[in-house]
Amino acid sequence: MPSVRPLFVVAGIGDGSGTGAATARLFARSGYRVALISRGPEYLNKLATELNQAGAEAAAFPLNDYTPASIKSAFVSIKSHWPSSPLRVAVFNAGYGVWKPFLDITEDEVRESIDTNILAAFAFARAAVLEFTKLELETANEGGVAGNARKRGTLIFTGATASIRGNTTTSAFSAGKFAIRALSQSLAKEFGKQNIHVAHSIIDGTIITDRTKSQRKDPSWEANQDVRLDPNSIAKSYLHLAEQDSSAWAWEIDLRPAHEKW
Amino acid sequence: MPSVRPLFVVAGIGDGSGTGAATARLFARSGYRVALISRGPEYLNKLATELNQAGAEAAAFPLNDYTPASIKSAFVSIKSHWPSSPLRVAVFNAGYGVWKPFLDITEDEVRESIDTNILAAFAFARAAVLEFTKLELETANEGGVAGNARKRGTLIFTGATASIRGNTTTSAFSAGKFAIRALSQSLAKEFGKQNIHVAHSIIDGTIITDRTKSQRKDPSWEANQDVRLDPNSIAKSYLHLAEQDSSAWAWEIDLRPAHEKW
Amino acid sequence: MPSVRPLFVVAGIGDGSGTGAATARLFARSGYRVALISRGPEYLNKLATELNQAGAEAAAFPLNDYTPASIKSAFVSIKSHWPSSPLRVAVFNAGYGVWKPFLDITEDEVRESIDTNILAAFAFARAAVLEFTKLELETANEGGVAGNARKRGTLIFTGATASIRGNTTTSAFSAGKFAIRALSQSLAKEFGKQNIHVAHSIIDGTIITDRTKSQRKDPSWEANQDVRLDPNSIAKSYLHLAEQDSSAWAWEIDLRPAHEKW
Amino acid sequence: MPSVRPLFVVAGIGDGSGTGAATARLFARSGYRVALISRGPEYLNKLATELNQAGAEAAAFPLNDYTPASIKSAFVSIKSHWPSSPLRVAVFNAGYGVWKPFLDITEDEVRESIDTNILAAFAFARAAVLEFTKLELETANEGGVAGNARKRGTLIFTGATASIRGNTTTSAFSAGKFAIRALSQSLAKEFGKQNIHVAHSIIDGTIITDRTKSQRKDPSWEANQDVRLDPNSIAKSYLHLAEQDSSAWAWEIDLRPAHEKW
Repeated sequence: MPSVRPLFVVAGIGDGSGTGAATARLFARSGYRVALISRGPEYLNKLATELNQAGAEAAAFPLNDYTPASIKSAFVSIKSHWPSSPLRVAVFNAGYGVWKPFLDITEDEVRESIDTNILAAFAFARAAVLEFTKLELETANEGGVAGNARKRGTLIFTGATASIRGNTTTSAFSAGKFAIRALSQSLAKEFGKQNIHVAHSIIDGTIITDRTKSQRKDPSWEANQDVRLDPNSIAKSYLHLAEQDSSAWAWEIDLRPAHEKW
Repeated sequence: MPSVRPLFVVAGIGDGSGTGAATARLFARSGYRVALISRGPEYLNKLATELNQAGAEAAAFPLNDYTPASIKSAFVSIKSHWPSSPLRVAVFNAGYGVWKPFLDITEDEVRESIDTNILAAFAFARAAVLEFTKLELETANEGGVAGNARKRGTLIFTGATASIRGNTTTSAFSAGKFAIRALSQSLAKEFGKQNIHVAHSIIDGTIITDRTKSQRKDPSWEANQDVRLDPNSIAKSYLHLAEQDSSAWAWEIDLRPAHEKW
Repeated sequence: MPSVRPLFVVAGIGDGSGTGAATARLFARSGYRVALISRGPEYLNKLATELNQAGAEAAAFPLNDYTPASIKSAFVSIKSHWPSSPLRVAVFNAGYGVWKPFLDITEDEVRESIDTNILAAFAFARAAVLEFTKLELETANEGGVAGNARKRGTLIFTGATASIRGNTTTSAFSAGKFAIRALSQSLAKEFGKQNIHVAHSIIDGTIITDRTKSQRKDPSWEANQDVRLDPNSIAKSYLHLAEQDSSAWAWEIDLRPAHEKW
Repeated sequence: MPSVRPLFVVAGIGDGSGTGAATARLFARSGYRVALISRGPEYLNKLATELNQAGAEAAAFPLNDYTPASIKSAFVSIKSHWPSSPLRVAVFNAGYGVWKPFLDITEDEVRESIDTNILAAFAFARAAVLEFTKLELETANEGGVAGNARKRGTLIFTGATASIRGNTTTSAFSAGKFAIRALSQSLAKEFGKQNIHVAHSIIDGTIITDRTKSQRKDPSWEANQDVRLDPNSIAKSYLHLAEQDSSAWAWEIDLRPAHEKW
């Protein structure tokens, strides 16, 4: 009997140079089908093409916005695209960051921050957990991936320094990130009993992406892996979380560069 | 020159038997004018009448909802009611609690929880901070209240166990409460420099109110002050926070009954 | 029937200008008999004399060291000095701070730090809790102090930033402070049921004392209450903790100056 | 030029069925020379023999006690046994647990708990860090192990639920565990700059070992990997920590079984 490749879904691809994309690449190489959810169809399609050319099976599911309806609809499309693939790993990596003095943040920005971070996280979690609860525990012949881990699935949320610490310009951003951390802990406790693994990462530093490179314009910073987070290294820890078997699950892991001051 | 009585504003009065009302009573007795913001005009007016009959100056500012526009409008009404009273203490005690298994929570309930907890807290904080920033540091002749504390004002958020711990039925509620905690910490760090004191309480247990009494119907629980939180005792800690001078401010205090298991 | 004045014990008086001494002064003014435990008999006797001249009842119990035997012996002396006074409040404010790069800290310094911070805290807590457990709940006629709070007693530990955060030069110091925080939380949970209130403060900034003044030699820092902790203000929060009734106890409170960066 | 195998040191082997032993087995299989430090020479030699028979290079370094002198001496023996092997990974897994009501814990037990947990951790950390600081960053030809991670070495401390939460019978145990956590965080911050990775694990549940099996005598518990921690699964997370490259290090990871209530 041919084995079925498990499915990996990630929301939040940005410009294809950050954590979401790196995670997609690593899970693709590790035997997962990869569903990419994000705004920005251009970057999304580019990454899907790249993965498919590298021999993986990937597909892009562009969003107009991060409303619950859009996210729900993306999961419907994914299921109709790969009806027989069990969803095993879902990564919520989306987010909207506004860093401003409190009194400069508009009401619209607060709402946008709350909606894109929190409501979207709830909708994504709901869709993923609904898929997981339908599944049997994963087995060794499931595409040879993560066998015997006794999991229905793994749901990972990407957090930030602002997930555990409010600061002078983070009132809106950290409100969203704290809320996602609360959601992830609640889900970890509620669904652990059903062998659904929910985890939360605290990315405590600056990730090297096309955007941060162009902001900094500092080749020595780019070249020095001790001072900035490599998305590919973050992805390795996400894969480790996904591979943890049910006897020793991490809920939370913090990641930062060796030379980070914290 | 006659001294001006300082102003105390609290949002979230419920049925007039909980933390919001107890805090209003204590600050009224301590020399503050009291502005009450809440839904439920009946309870609100009843409490205002009670306070006025006891010799305080209180007024009710009923809300139809906890939207930012409604909150902003309530503060406009307060200022027009007492134009010369400096706002010195503001307590955000509102909230919307939904405790359900994650998959049973509807999209509307998530939104209601996010809006009533988080957006309302942002709007309340904005209105209070804007008032505080207009003020001079408080002085000893300000109604004899809290003199020489070198504060522009004190903003207190009421939290809960769910502010620091997600649990099986608290995905929506703790998301809101974590977010408020993030907001309060961000504001504390941003506005401390302007001598605005922002604090957060963690109410870690069940408060005795008309509602919890009717839910429990347990006279021994009601009679035993070691096992449930008395709103009047919570109010004393809020008054202590408001009276702390600028050399030793608390950001966070946790309160629970002596016999609470935690 | 004449009422009996309750007893307050504090360990750690330093040079008489810090938290321990300020707390002693405030509790003396609030109607407590005051027992002072510390090394440095000179400062100790000076403070006792000062308090007695101000109309309080105070006595000094000098220690040669903070070994468990010495601490136990001091409590025996206190009980024999005031046999009928019930111990109601005990503050552990002692400590030994070594701030050095890890590899520069000698084995002796590690031991001294561990012993003076942790072993001493255990011994002090043991002596205080043993006294508390012998007592009835406090009543209103006990010297007019803190009546009806339904407490056997209050035990407060003084912590620091290093109680919740290790840092580059705090390996030894924060190990001691984290341990004291663990002790205080364990005791709070174990003895709450017996109406013994155990609390922990996080002093998150520099306290103005004779020592810090002479280290900084900065009159503007001394003059500005927004930038350094006043021991008298800390003492007020300790008194608040001691006066909390059994329906709403704080385990932890953090205190810092308004302008502190944290 | 022949490559040199890197060295792995672990302290705390117990009866050879727990985390220390499982970690030793996994690092042995991953290409490390393994030095075993523990009390109980019998179990220690048995494990060393087992590892050597499986084709690894392992040696036992028995301790009479966990005093700093004994630990220091063990590291001297290790270096003289394998003078050319660079120490790359050190795991402090020792500990002394006393779970008793506070007033039942003797002064000797407090001291034993403090010494075996904290002083031993300091001495072990010192010996490991001193070795690490002598080394070059690891390179790809070092036995083919963990190449290019840009580390001098990895130091991991094994923690427990009691590392982050005091409870009714854990005053002594959690004091030790909190202190180790403080030490690990201080070291992580101090030595990150030198590319020394210090991490801390929170083992939040019961590990299946010969001892816990004989205590529980519950075959269904033993058989169900969802309800107890498997030491081999913990070891996999330790290996992951050791393999993280310098751009994304975790300081802390929490591990618990899928069905754990927390």
